[in-house]
Amino acid sequence: MPNSFGTLFTITTWGESHGTAVGVVVDGCPPNLPLTAAEIQIELDRRRPGQSDIVTPRKESDTVEILSGLYEGRTTGTPISMLVRNADQRPGAYDEMVEKFRPSHADFTYQAKFGRRDPRGGGRSSARETIGRVAAGAIAKKILALAGSVEIRAYLTQVHDIDMPTRDSFPTLAEVEATPVRCPDAATAERMIARIKEVRSQGDSVGGTIECRVRGLPAGLGAPVFDRLEADLAKAMLSLPATKGFEVGSGFAGTRLKGSEHNDPFAMRDGQVRTTSNRSGGVQGGISNGEELVFRTAFKPTATILQSQKTVNTKGEETELAARGRHDPCVVPRAVPIVEAMAALVLLDHWMRHAAQNLIFKF
Amino acid sequence: MPNSFGTLFTITTWGESHGTAVGVVVDGCPPNLPLTAAEIQIELDRRRPGQSDIVTPRKESDTVEILSGLYEGRTTGTPISMLVRNADQRPGAYDEMVEKFRPSHADFTYQAKFGRRDPRGGGRSSARETIGRVAAGAIAKKILALAGSVEIRAYLTQVHDIDMPTRDSFPTLAEVEATPVRCPDAATAERMIARIKEVRSQGDSVGGTIECRVRGLPAGLGAPVFDRLEADLAKAMLSLPATKGFEVGSGFAGTRLKGSEHNDPFAMRDGQVRTTSNRSGGVQGGISNGEELVFRTAFKPTATILQSQKTVNTKGEETELAARGRHDPCVVPRAVPIVEAMAALVLLDHWMRHAAQNLIFKF
Amino acid sequence: MPNSFGTLFTITTWGESHGTAVGVVVDGCPPNLPLTAAEIQIELDRRRPGQSDIVTPRKESDTVEILSGLYEGRTTGTPISMLVRNADQRPGAYDEMVEKFRPSHADFTYQAKFGRRDPRGGGRSSARETIGRVAAGAIAKKILALAGSVEIRAYLTQVHDIDMPTRDSFPTLAEVEATPVRCPDAATAERMIARIKEVRSQGDSVGGTIECRVRGLPAGLGAPVFDRLEADLAKAMLSLPATKGFEVGSGFAGTRLKGSEHNDPFAMRDGQVRTTSNRSGGVQGGISNGEELVFRTAFKPTATILQSQKTVNTKGEETELAARGRHDPCVVPRAVPIVEAMAALVLLDHWMRHAAQNLIFKF
Amino acid sequence: MPNSFGTLFTITTWGESHGTAVGVVVDGCPPNLPLTAAEIQIELDRRRPGQSDIVTPRKESDTVEILSGLYEGRTTGTPISMLVRNADQRPGAYDEMVEKFRPSHADFTYQAKFGRRDPRGGGRSSARETIGRVAAGAIAKKILALAGSVEIRAYLTQVHDIDMPTRDSFPTLAEVEATPVRCPDAATAERMIARIKEVRSQGDSVGGTIECRVRGLPAGLGAPVFDRLEADLAKAMLSLPATKGFEVGSGFAGTRLKGSEHNDPFAMRDGQVRTTSNRSGGVQGGISNGEELVFRTAFKPTATILQSQKTVNTKGEETELAARGRHDPCVVPRAVPIVEAMAALVLLDHWMRHAAQNLIFKF
Repeated sequence: MPNSFGTLFTITTWGESHGTAVGVVVDGCPPNLPLTAAEIQIELDRRRPGQSDIVTPRKESDTVEILSGLYEGRTTGTPISMLVRNADQRPGAYDEMVEKFRPSHADFTYQAKFGRRDPRGGGRSSARETIGRVAAGAIAKKILALAGSVEIRAYLTQVHDIDMPTRDSFPTLAEVEATPVRCPDAATAERMIARIKEVRSQGDSVGGTIECRVRGLPAGLGAPVFDRLEADLAKAMLSLPATKGFEVGSGFAGTRLKGSEHNDPFAMRDGQVRTTSNRSGGVQGGISNGEELVFRTAFKPTATILQSQKTVNTKGEETELAARGRHDPCVVPRAVPIVEAMAALVLLDHWMRHAAQNLIFKF
Repeated sequence: MPNSFGTLFTITTWGESHGTAVGVVVDGCPPNLPLTAAEIQIELDRRRPGQSDIVTPRKESDTVEILSGLYEGRTTGTPISMLVRNADQRPGAYDEMVEKFRPSHADFTYQAKFGRRDPRGGGRSSARETIGRVAAGAIAKKILALAGSVEIRAYLTQVHDIDMPTRDSFPTLAEVEATPVRCPDAATAERMIARIKEVRSQGDSVGGTIECRVRGLPAGLGAPVFDRLEADLAKAMLSLPATKGFEVGSGFAGTRLKGSEHNDPFAMRDGQVRTTSNRSGGVQGGISNGEELVFRTAFKPTATILQSQKTVNTKGEETELAARGRHDPCVVPRAVPIVEAMAALVLLDHWMRHAAQNLIFKF
Repeated sequence: MPNSFGTLFTITTWGESHGTAVGVVVDGCPPNLPLTAAEIQIELDRRRPGQSDIVTPRKESDTVEILSGLYEGRTTGTPISMLVRNADQRPGAYDEMVEKFRPSHADFTYQAKFGRRDPRGGGRSSARETIGRVAAGAIAKKILALAGSVEIRAYLTQVHDIDMPTRDSFPTLAEVEATPVRCPDAATAERMIARIKEVRSQGDSVGGTIECRVRGLPAGLGAPVFDRLEADLAKAMLSLPATKGFEVGSGFAGTRLKGSEHNDPFAMRDGQVRTTSNRSGGVQGGISNGEELVFRTAFKPTATILQSQKTVNTKGEETELAARGRHDPCVVPRAVPIVEAMAALVLLDHWMRHAAQNLIFKF
Repeated sequence: MPNSFGTLFTITTWGESHGTAVGVVVDGCPPNLPLTAAEIQIELDRRRPGQSDIVTPRKESDTVEILSGLYEGRTTGTPISMLVRNADQRPGAYDEMVEKFRPSHADFTYQAKFGRRDPRGGGRSSARETIGRVAAGAIAKKILALAGSVEIRAYLTQVHDIDMPTRDSFPTLAEVEATPVRCPDAATAERMIARIKEVRSQGDSVGGTIECRVRGLPAGLGAPVFDRLEADLAKAMLSLPATKGFEVGSGFAGTRLKGSEHNDPFAMRDGQVRTTSNRSGGVQGGISNGEELVFRTAFKPTATILQSQKTVNTKGEETELAARGRHDPCVVPRAVPIVEAMAALVLLDHWMRHAAQNLIFKF
């Protein structure tokens, strides 16, 4: 089921950019959870276009409807179906895409795979698909927060060649949301915004990196071998549009250390086994160790640019293409709530799996 | 099934480092494939310890037995069960591990998760688990080679701070296997070997990066949304012991380019739609585009070092630990066939999924 | 995913009887299939209430909307989301159910499982859930018909103590649809209708048996061991509301024969290996043998009756309950298209699985 | 994964009748369970051939080896790999099968599916495959017994035309095991044994029915919609060799009652909501209701008979075949522990799933 994710808390997304609607079905949600559309909407509003002058001005209210799975304001344990209508369909705006493969987009590969594609706004390959993930992730986040005081915080640490200075303290939501670029360091955020505006004026685009930190997670989540926590997080992140890399803890930089520099010594703190450094990024042998979970995801520069590019059309003729209209010069800020949503889905799923194997039958 | 991988061509691995044996069950293999234990053994010998003076001298013949799924030298379409006996069990060698959590190993997290662990050689968290993956991957590689002329080549591009110069041409197997460090650039290989010997003499360890390239892959493999080809590869790679990162194509470095620099223009070549650069790394929108698949995996320095380290014992007392005995100062060279095996498993599985949806029912 | 079915051609259903809507997401559908809502509607109309005087007069137009997965009238290979609004919600009609557990319904068990339930019309346990199955099954049926000339025909062979005489020839759709009771034997149908009207006048209900035959199926579908064709059909049928039994071929009666009477001899016919009898019901060792697939499903009498029954309320007090309003005295005729839909889903899924393992990589 | 079963407590079986060995990998077992090979062996001995004069005299000690997943006598939460060597391989005994398709066996369908089959003793289609199920089921049974005082009891209620009188009380293990035919009614058992000997003397075979009852099960296990408890049980039972039908509670006979006769009234007993009859068979709406679970499985007469039968050979020529050697004239008694094993696997899996969704996150 290529459009489903998770094993116990599962989601199935559907919908195209310019179809009737996009949506998601959440299966396996614990019952009796108080839930309102308004709570879901908060997260959707964070990923919504048109919120600031550095993102696409596409106008979408992205209002969520909950169609099933609730009774008198609480979940019933049955599937929660959620839907967001596509308001801003502009027929004609994508005529050129019907004929020409946009470079570094999915137009050609969808055609190669299926012999057919919905060219309107990228169809299924549009980032609008992530609406369903964010809606489902909002539920997962709420459960994690209620049940385990788990906090998930994603934010930009890099845009183009601008890097945020390293910081130790866990950024607050307010710090992250203080600027549209979602970098908790105010000075860096300002530079990032300037850079994004600059490339936009050039009809160009930039990428960047999102770091995500999670605190409040118990030790023991994850699994040996294939379903390691970092493996499932890597899959979750690389399943997002425009991603090119994932790293946990020390990541690629950690390969340049020696073992004596890299290992995290254990020590006792408040009666708990803890590590005195966290190059592991909160996970050892695929299982959470109770430290902060830390991982980063790389997003390439937006493929859609206003500059003219060489390409090929569906008849196999070489041609040129220049995008028109509304586009994000940098998608990374809007990806922050999506990263958080995917992290929440992975963590809740593993928590439920852990419980099933380890907490019920005690010997 | 945390010990299973794949959806149509699936593997289930089992076994601990110092138990009776380790093994794998392969389910879904196409029938009528000629197959011998000797072919599997070739790949197992590539990951076997004791092959050179830069890896662990642990002596294991790692001889594979095929227990089922073959009849008169060909697969029957039923499960192929394979087993490798653990020869070199040294009771007593791991007594200290029973009491003390090894830093940056899985000892503590297994204990936290399961309330119990097999401490002998790391038990299930040992890299011996990957024997099953390599055995299964050997079958997948053979099918890909026979059916699609697909070649999968992994090799080291970095050890500690030593980087291999960029090369365009596809490395040959002979180039890779020319040195025990499995870097196809001879001069770099020499420096890497020297560095590994140096850190070993210090009782220390180093990490590095493996690049994997695949050629001969048709366009159209992979899937939109959650089961993107790069997402499944990322999961496969991060499911390997000691991995901290994954990137495809331009990876993290690509985030520092502008869209106009990063996009891969399309052009016609030999009547095919091709790209004139390959920052996408062979995959666009989660689906292969017919170019070379290129990805890299980061391996941290080996956690086991001979220097003394601070840690905690199972009674919650702070203590020190220094490993004794046989260890790899750098596991990365031996991970090369494992990376290839996992890549083969992902690619074959996606090929079968693609076929099921797209090749049978034509309208 | 308890609300999903299938491995390659998969469906996920959602929705409650008296919520906003019920629906289904179909994932894995082959691309380029011409498809219209009207085709889906034909099957939905077959299961719709209010079609005759022997079924519930509940008025529902059950109009399907296709929300995704189509472009210019053909499938794109991406998820097909379909939705049917619940028109006839009658608040108040189910007040008594809120307090009292209906005997032999799912009220008590949902409450026991989830600590909560949607009591309006049975919520998720309502047979309205099967709308999604029928809509998805319509697609599967079309693919099977186009690709393999597969015909699936279900019909009643028994209502209460009225049994249809055995017939050899494959019933036509016209014969089945000739009467609202969907028994292809006209004389038996008349007696069944009379019996249903009789029990309805008593405020009572009856059950019955549906036989399903499939022709045009190639040999080789199904799988050894757990995913035998009959095992997956049994699961599919027992997943339908009100079912109590499943049998294939000779079924329970076959247990009363000797081996020499039961075995199906092989013979050559038109150059094909065929059997001269079909007590196997078209499946041997879990795999189709090219003969007609024949299976039967038992449906209990409708649990909702107008007579007063002893029960218990949610406070744990003994009480009485008599249903009011609109109910089917016999649900079996309306289950005919649902049985066909589930059969189509199982068969198409196994066809795709068979293709993936056996048809692509030939050695 | 056609050779795997279960979602959280999963098993993967492998092996052929006359290959090196048969085995199973159990994944997801809760840790810390005390477990010995001797406990597994008890169940294997119940299904072993050669135990009495009414079953096949094939000599197999069927000794189980546990290869992984235990440490110091307790499970570790990692995969448990178990293996039984095939001792009694008689090359030559099956030469005729290589050429001729045995009627009502899987020879032809395996050939049709895979283009190849292991003809020795039926290869993968042999009932020896169920050894792995019984070994895994022994673990599941132990967990259910320890954790929930759940008792699973299967026994024969019918052989050929001999039916056991209905009994209300739960049969004891001693009653079932008192005779080799495993019918707890002594007088009926005697008649069954006589019938089996009679048909054996005719070179013929008979089938029968196994009833299985489970007590001690809490209300709430199972799931709405596709993964109903009875649906998963039906799949489990129909996945066994030689099965033709499944029914739960009133089953096929229930279709001949009226709703007023069939419904199970609720009443309070010892402060619990209970039913005063059990035509539901312990499950309502797919979920256990706390009453005894009752289901029956139909087994056809053994396909292998010593009488001559018409068939076809692999060259497509009509011919005759008469089995020689050792065969069960009635497999049903030996299927009793297999039915119990499969029931245990389904119930434990659903218990773990129920726990994951309902017991951890309480709101």
